[in-house]
Amino acid sequence: MSWQPGTPWSGAGRRIHMQEVGMRDGLQNEQAFVPTADKIALVDALSDAGLPKIEVTAFVSSQAIPALRDAEVVLREIRRRPGTVYSALVPNVRGAERALDARVDELNLVLSVSETHNRANLRMTRTQSFAALREVIARTASTAVNVSLSCSFGCPIEGDMPESEVLGWAERFIDLGVRGVTLCDTTGMAYPTQVVALARAFRARWADTALTLHFHNTRGMGLANMLAAIGAGVDRFDASLGGLGGCPYAPGASGNVCTEEIVHALELMGYATGVDLPGLIAAARRLPALVGHDVPSQISKAGQRLERHPVRADFQAIRARPV
Amino acid sequence: MSWQPGTPWSGAGRRIHMQEVGMRDGLQNEQAFVPTADKIALVDALSDAGLPKIEVTAFVSSQAIPALRDAEVVLREIRRRPGTVYSALVPNVRGAERALDARVDELNLVLSVSETHNRANLRMTRTQSFAALREVIARTASTAVNVSLSCSFGCPIEGDMPESEVLGWAERFIDLGVRGVTLCDTTGMAYPTQVVALARAFRARWADTALTLHFHNTRGMGLANMLAAIGAGVDRFDASLGGLGGCPYAPGASGNVCTEEIVHALELMGYATGVDLPGLIAAARRLPALVGHDVPSQISKAGQRLERHPVRADFQAIRARPV
Repeated sequence: MSWQPGTPWSGAGRRIHMQEVGMRDGLQNEQAFVPTADKIALVDALSDAGLPKIEVTAFVSSQAIPALRDAEVVLREIRRRPGTVYSALVPNVRGAERALDARVDELNLVLSVSETHNRANLRMTRTQSFAALREVIARTASTAVNVSLSCSFGCPIEGDMPESEVLGWAERFIDLGVRGVTLCDTTGMAYPTQVVALARAFRARWADTALTLHFHNTRGMGLANMLAAIGAGVDRFDASLGGLGGCPYAPGASGNVCTEEIVHALELMGYATGVDLPGLIAAARRLPALVGHDVPSQISKAGQRLERHPVRADFQAIRARPV
Repeated sequence: MSWQPGTPWSGAGRRIHMQEVGMRDGLQNEQAFVPTADKIALVDALSDAGLPKIEVTAFVSSQAIPALRDAEVVLREIRRRPGTVYSALVPNVRGAERALDARVDELNLVLSVSETHNRANLRMTRTQSFAALREVIARTASTAVNVSLSCSFGCPIEGDMPESEVLGWAERFIDLGVRGVTLCDTTGMAYPTQVVALARAFRARWADTALTLHFHNTRGMGLANMLAAIGAGVDRFDASLGGLGGCPYAPGASGNVCTEEIVHALELMGYATGVDLPGLIAAARRLPALVGHDVPSQISKAGQRLERHPVRADFQAIRARPV
């Protein structure tokens, strides 16, 4: 089988770009403050694993997200691997200036396509958010900008979002010249049928804008949604080391799709991620001690599919028994 | 979009048969003994949810699997819903006789296609197992028989299993007249490319044998494997309430694919499972108290995708703030 649109079951060497968001979307949800030196070591391990993009941190109010209050130091002190883009989330001009001072490669802006979720999460109306982000884009012309649209596959408060609403907000930002758009499944509401429809609609209108899909595994559909999107021509995905990144609306449920699980699955299927899986798994196995709890990653518990397990101690004694 | 082979993203009303195995494959792995009355109540709830087949228990040595030592009582005392097939796993003629006495509808036999795994798990060679199962089939001509082939997608000790080996064991049983064959991904090694190839090869040889696929979510690929199989024409799947059913080779990893997660996903995609999802979720939510630990099910934690969540208490106070 070669890779064909619609049938993603065989990767046939097709390139898939995995973009790591665990250091931002993951750690921002953690109670524990991961020490700055450990954050830097984790980002360095992710760089060593060859990830093409790493969202390193967020330049937000340290009162709002104390877990990321060391954003400047982390972004300044990580090793920069040629070939990796180091991005950061910024909510406004002040955040953008701090990120640029710390030598960010790409700014990630965020707006929720749900009015209610934008007000609840960002404490502004969407119109106010858009005005703030437009100002960021105007002042940072020489730096790559990506915009992440939260709740693109549904809002936990409002419910389904009309496709026209999602594409309408994408259009406003694309008209301002952003290089990329990320459609975010913020609380794990996306399902494959919907993913195929939205990805096709986006691609039909904007063939040249870098499109990223950002899935959470809150309802167990993360990998299926990614494969549906790949079938629809998408080749960029956010994912989170260890599957970090819970959702305040679903206590106990899984977080972002898990980078090492996705890389493991895609490589088995013949896709080329360019990522060093053992290095990724080793990094993921450091997480429970740093965040103080188990993480959703199955691969860091079960190992890769062909990892061999020893036979039981009494194996040689197994003989026929009466049936 | 209508349903098309290869592209399972839109169900278009296609029927998918979900077969519940949590009461057997799930509970057999539990340390806690779930009281007999609770087991019966769970099976009754699964019947009420409209599942077309429920594997109720296993008639094995109560020393080998004490968790299922009440097999007779459970199978005798459950309510029988017309339209549901009540099956039980049996390892030998003695087990089959006990199951038939308790009015089983279908016998499920098990053999591992991996010689090492069969010896480690069943404490017999495959040849010895086959002889015992052939005797069961010969003596129970009037009862439906299904055979489950463990490690069909790989063995945790031996590694990959040749397709010819898997199909060879299927053929031996089909030649004996079994009604159905289940290809089991016992330790979660299956991946979509492989699933498509094996399902197509099976279907090409035996169009009339009921083919079930049995996946574990040990490495996070359960739903993706099911969708790959659906694309290849498979319409019967085992799944486990709550995602019960761990694997002794992967402590802490997920168990069988989770019935309510799969039904939730398939119904969203337009497949017809005939299963009452709220009833299933209610039953799954009883499990942690019965087994003494959290279960993998995401849906029982996060709820269905359009379950609304309240806005935060200070929502009305959210106004513009300086950006």
